[in-house]
Amino acid sequence: MVEPASGSAPLTYRDAGVDIDRVTDELRQVAKMARRTHTDPRVLTGIGSFGALFRADFGGMAEPVLVSSTDGVGTKLLVAQRMERYDTVGACLVNHCVDDILVMGAEPLFFLDYVAAGHFGEGKLAALVSGFARACEAEGLALIGGESAEMPGLYRPDDFDLAGFIVGVVDRPQVLGLERVRAGDVLIGLHSSGLHTNGYSLAQKILFERAGLDVHDTLPGMDISVGDALLAEHRCYRRPLLPLLKDEDLHALAHITGGGFTDNVPRVLPKHLSAVIDRDAWDVPPLFTALQRLGPVARAEMDRTFNMGLGMLCLVAPGAVERVLAVLREGGERPLVVGRVEPGDGSVRYAGSSDA
Amino acid sequence: MVEPASGSAPLTYRDAGVDIDRVTDELRQVAKMARRTHTDPRVLTGIGSFGALFRADFGGMAEPVLVSSTDGVGTKLLVAQRMERYDTVGACLVNHCVDDILVMGAEPLFFLDYVAAGHFGEGKLAALVSGFARACEAEGLALIGGESAEMPGLYRPDDFDLAGFIVGVVDRPQVLGLERVRAGDVLIGLHSSGLHTNGYSLAQKILFERAGLDVHDTLPGMDISVGDALLAEHRCYRRPLLPLLKDEDLHALAHITGGGFTDNVPRVLPKHLSAVIDRDAWDVPPLFTALQRLGPVARAEMDRTFNMGLGMLCLVAPGAVERVLAVLREGGERPLVVGRVEPGDGSVRYAGSSDA
Repeated sequence: MVEPASGSAPLTYRDAGVDIDRVTDELRQVAKMARRTHTDPRVLTGIGSFGALFRADFGGMAEPVLVSSTDGVGTKLLVAQRMERYDTVGACLVNHCVDDILVMGAEPLFFLDYVAAGHFGEGKLAALVSGFARACEAEGLALIGGESAEMPGLYRPDDFDLAGFIVGVVDRPQVLGLERVRAGDVLIGLHSSGLHTNGYSLAQKILFERAGLDVHDTLPGMDISVGDALLAEHRCYRRPLLPLLKDEDLHALAHITGGGFTDNVPRVLPKHLSAVIDRDAWDVPPLFTALQRLGPVARAEMDRTFNMGLGMLCLVAPGAVERVLAVLREGGERPLVVGRVEPGDGSVRYAGSSDA
Repeated sequence: MVEPASGSAPLTYRDAGVDIDRVTDELRQVAKMARRTHTDPRVLTGIGSFGALFRADFGGMAEPVLVSSTDGVGTKLLVAQRMERYDTVGACLVNHCVDDILVMGAEPLFFLDYVAAGHFGEGKLAALVSGFARACEAEGLALIGGESAEMPGLYRPDDFDLAGFIVGVVDRPQVLGLERVRAGDVLIGLHSSGLHTNGYSLAQKILFERAGLDVHDTLPGMDISVGDALLAEHRCYRRPLLPLLKDEDLHALAHITGGGFTDNVPRVLPKHLSAVIDRDAWDVPPLFTALQRLGPVARAEMDRTFNMGLGMLCLVAPGAVERVLAVLREGGERPLVVGRVEPGDGSVRYAGSSDA
């Protein structure tokens, strides 16, 4: 039990590293950005205060089901930190979450963000939240709430983390997934914009440690810097897939996130079926081939870590493939047939060239 | 552009510090704990995979409104780390979130957790999630989803952070809040169990830095260690308040979190009313008086940082005070009348002894 020296200056919360006034000010900017996303009349603003309100009005649905998901950005945040660019990772997280519920057939309703940091420097919190707000606006969901925590001691001053939480809705008869998947279904791949939000620990080990590259260096075959390539925003597949969500011939969608094809495709496979992916069916983008060569990393390990250039796989009834491809092309995609479903054991098998 | 030395051992994701197999195993334990909370038949398990499904069936409600909130535990996590006790902070977070939507009049439906760490040591992830699961079970909501991210490089090995997301529902005519609050309303305080989840940066600065205490020391007037006192779980006020949620005479609830009375009570005050809190109306618990003395911290700063022993304030119609007190006592509370609402400017004023 030690009493403080008599005459110690009185302590305030600000002395402990938490400046409520400064944060309150930045939170006001954040609130303004969030309000721009409140275009859905079901968002009830102006009433209440401790929680965010959204009218559960799902007119026209026989049996509405809420679909929720949570995610983080992972160590992609370290790239944002190296690049001192904070306005994109929030969009990655929104898009990741939208894609995660899209594969259940759900349309997004609202999103909440969690932002934690050792210190919110000038404009850092606002920049981070601007990424969330921009993507929510683009995809038509409401950024309805959030928490910003400045935690000196828990995070080093420049460190930060983000988490996102999404709620969407789907009519139960339209839930996509393994119940619909049949032998003979065709796998259609949609291009990714880069690593999306997965495999960043390995990618950074390869590029910055093994290869000794800097974020400002360029990779052969690419005309942008390593940093720009790594920070490319996680794509949202909602717009191109929207016209197909109620299509009976779209059986399932697999969002290729952590674990690559190897771990994500089985999430939509019944135990008695396997997916065969033809590795020769698409050109693996230069960022992935560079990672594979510079590691070096075995192709099998690549396929269970990275998306290899395809961020979303559609499992489609064989008779509908041409029609689905046409709809996707109309939506601006360059879709590719990359495999099919066969009798098996719930796993993914690979065909074509094995180790590059 | 540096090529790796010829003959470098091939890299795997595990080499980058992420061991999917080990984490998968701990995630299986986590899934088992979560399943125990899936007692609500609206939780649809076994279908889908990328998102969690909950039937939007709110039978009997005229106009169901979803109430959502997100929060973290703040630097209370540093105390858990010092004490190496990981199974309580998850419960703090669930209870915090339940209390946050309770003040809107909402009953909780489901919860999702985000857990990030530099490294999940033996059983740490499972211990953290056990706190979430235990509190969800106790309060009857479903732990429906979550994300566990191991991020070497972003977090130091022993560091971790938690975020929680809650969704509840309230029938719109029963939304509590400032629209109902009138001059003359009486403030009834409900005891907190300790600091709950706020003011931990200041508390630790005082206790560990200024006073040089260790988590295992005891404070005068307390028969438990500093660590145990600081780790006391955030109380959930759902059970005692449940019988009052549809009571017209309960006008509003203020959850006393970050910002103390000074910042939280105004969240339920119309601009033309103020709340007067009588500081002599309750005994401030020894943990708070010790913090105030050891800082030293001015009482005004205490009141805008800590809950001072009252974690929830109920704003009640004057004619209903005795009845409400009786209901709360029946629910096991020791409720206290601590102030009233008066014409004013939307702020909190304090009466009674000013600086102890």
